[in-house]
Amino acid sequence: MKLDDLLKQTGEWLKGIGPNSEMVMSSRIRLARNLAKYPFPHRADKKQLEDVLSDFEKAYKRIEYFKGALYLMIKDLNALDKQFLIERHLISREHIRHTEYKAVLISDREIISVMVNEEDHLRIQILQSGFNLQDTWQLANKIDEELDRYLDYAYSNELGFLTCCPTNVGTGLRASCMVQLPSLVITKQIKKVLYAITKLGLTARGLYGEGTEAYGNFFQISNQVTLGHSEEEIIDNLERIMRQIIEQENAARSSLLANQRPLFEDMIWRAYGTLKSAHIITSNEAINLLSHVRLGMDLGIIKDIDRNMLNELLIQIQPAHLQKLQGKQLSTHERDVTRAELIRSKFMR
Amino acid sequence: MKLDDLLKQTGEWLKGIGPNSEMVMSSRIRLARNLAKYPFPHRADKKQLEDVLSDFEKAYKRIEYFKGALYLMIKDLNALDKQFLIERHLISREHIRHTEYKAVLISDREIISVMVNEEDHLRIQILQSGFNLQDTWQLANKIDEELDRYLDYAYSNELGFLTCCPTNVGTGLRASCMVQLPSLVITKQIKKVLYAITKLGLTARGLYGEGTEAYGNFFQISNQVTLGHSEEEIIDNLERIMRQIIEQENAARSSLLANQRPLFEDMIWRAYGTLKSAHIITSNEAINLLSHVRLGMDLGIIKDIDRNMLNELLIQIQPAHLQKLQGKQLSTHERDVTRAELIRSKFMR
Repeated sequence: MKLDDLLKQTGEWLKGIGPNSEMVMSSRIRLARNLAKYPFPHRADKKQLEDVLSDFEKAYKRIEYFKGALYLMIKDLNALDKQFLIERHLISREHIRHTEYKAVLISDREIISVMVNEEDHLRIQILQSGFNLQDTWQLANKIDEELDRYLDYAYSNELGFLTCCPTNVGTGLRASCMVQLPSLVITKQIKKVLYAITKLGLTARGLYGEGTEAYGNFFQISNQVTLGHSEEEIIDNLERIMRQIIEQENAARSSLLANQRPLFEDMIWRAYGTLKSAHIITSNEAINLLSHVRLGMDLGIIKDIDRNMLNELLIQIQPAHLQKLQGKQLSTHERDVTRAELIRSKFMR
Repeated sequence: MKLDDLLKQTGEWLKGIGPNSEMVMSSRIRLARNLAKYPFPHRADKKQLEDVLSDFEKAYKRIEYFKGALYLMIKDLNALDKQFLIERHLISREHIRHTEYKAVLISDREIISVMVNEEDHLRIQILQSGFNLQDTWQLANKIDEELDRYLDYAYSNELGFLTCCPTNVGTGLRASCMVQLPSLVITKQIKKVLYAITKLGLTARGLYGEGTEAYGNFFQISNQVTLGHSEEEIIDNLERIMRQIIEQENAARSSLLANQRPLFEDMIWRAYGTLKSAHIITSNEAINLLSHVRLGMDLGIIKDIDRNMLNELLIQIQPAHLQKLQGKQLSTHERDVTRAELIRSKFMR
């Protein structure tokens, strides 16, 4: 597989399949792991970082799950490709800050990926479509066990897995769900919900993780703390609270539909009309409108639209994807024009 | 003809035909006339007002132009019908303030109408589609001559026609054009143009005359003064300045198209998409969007839309028209929903 092959495929998590996929776009498990014989990346010297890379390379090649996987050294990538991988949620913004001795491994359907020498030696990510935390965790666990067979993890019997940042010590696990909560946003209940989440040890971020805004009513909800809890407790806790959030969003939807259906329909159809018609559109506006159309499908107001197409568009309209699809660099204005063209072509029937 | 028959037809001035009809929606001549034997309406007593009505009725019935015309006593009309006639530009807002002893005469294609006992005994209006001042004036002149045969106009050899308000003394003539100037608005040159117009003895108002805003970039441009000028001078002056305004709007359009075509296209197609999709829309928003679509047609960006349909919609989306089309009273919200439905149905193909 080559990097450009990703452009031609839909990441598994974007397929709009799996339980509750009308509301929960994706479920994600991330494990932070370090190799016992080397200092954490920010303390390791060049030789040690190189050794982490080569130890990991030897290990993954022995694992069936990574057959045909794409292994990329970040320093070999141009700016566009780095941004492209961020947009696909395969690497973090931090991972491209200093690119020496850093790598990413990407499995063929993009379900599994591993960043090497980011904040920790290994950041293992499992990303699947829909509300699917248990399955995702099962797979994460298997990958983790496989890697553990060939690598010596830094582990303390007292503390659990050792990680660079103390907030990850213990399980090294972060579980999260990407969920769309338009009705809670419209009815302004979202503040109360997000406040309650924080009290329960969870946190809510935007579409692109820490420090990004919640565009298009998308929220990435994840556990905050790992120390002192088992993996199962963390997953169960997130899952339970997610079920409550889904219930609350559904209640808000029913109430809105019962009391303000025309307003709702107007918002949704205007979004649809604008996406079908605009000739210049920013990614923020596009994400918001796509989110309204997505809601329209969930409510049965808009029919005959492929959810997969909508989810894909959320990624394809991002700057690097647009430029790679066009095969050239584009200015901001050119991107806004190209983005509108792409959306119109997808909405054309 | 009955009042409700108007609902089924397109007023001649809305047909989008005639010279420069892509930019100049309509041309209008209004003549203020009074009968010599009676005081002006606000000074006349009941008997005198009744006599004006009966003198006029006898006169118009002898005139060929008014064959099959609709003659309505304003006091017999319900609130909806009065608003309906205002929306069709057949009577003024002033004409429905006190309704006793007031009437309106409407010719079959709505080209000619006469308000009786408004500010003056007679207000004769000729309203035609397109930039058509000379023809409109010719017709106004003929109607005026016909009425003059059967009625004794208040006329001074020194001052000309005598009118209630001194600003109308002389010719009693107001000539105006309804023109759409979106490019001058977008490029912010409109202020300069409107300032120049004032200096040249003209004035600019909105779609519904004095005191109304210029929604949808529509401006009603008319002469300010009548005393001391012949009818031909007034018409020629307005016509000459209108030609300059048309040239300036065309220059602004060319410049915008050359330099900012994508922005233009985006604005126009978004308007189109919103009109096709909205489920709730106010009349102000609708007029603005219709005006953008109208511009899109003029620029050849949007094709296959009937200008007549667009012009008609500008009137049909007005509150009284909507309610008469529905055959019932509607709340503001119901009107916004019905308006959106009507527009969608017209844009559907």
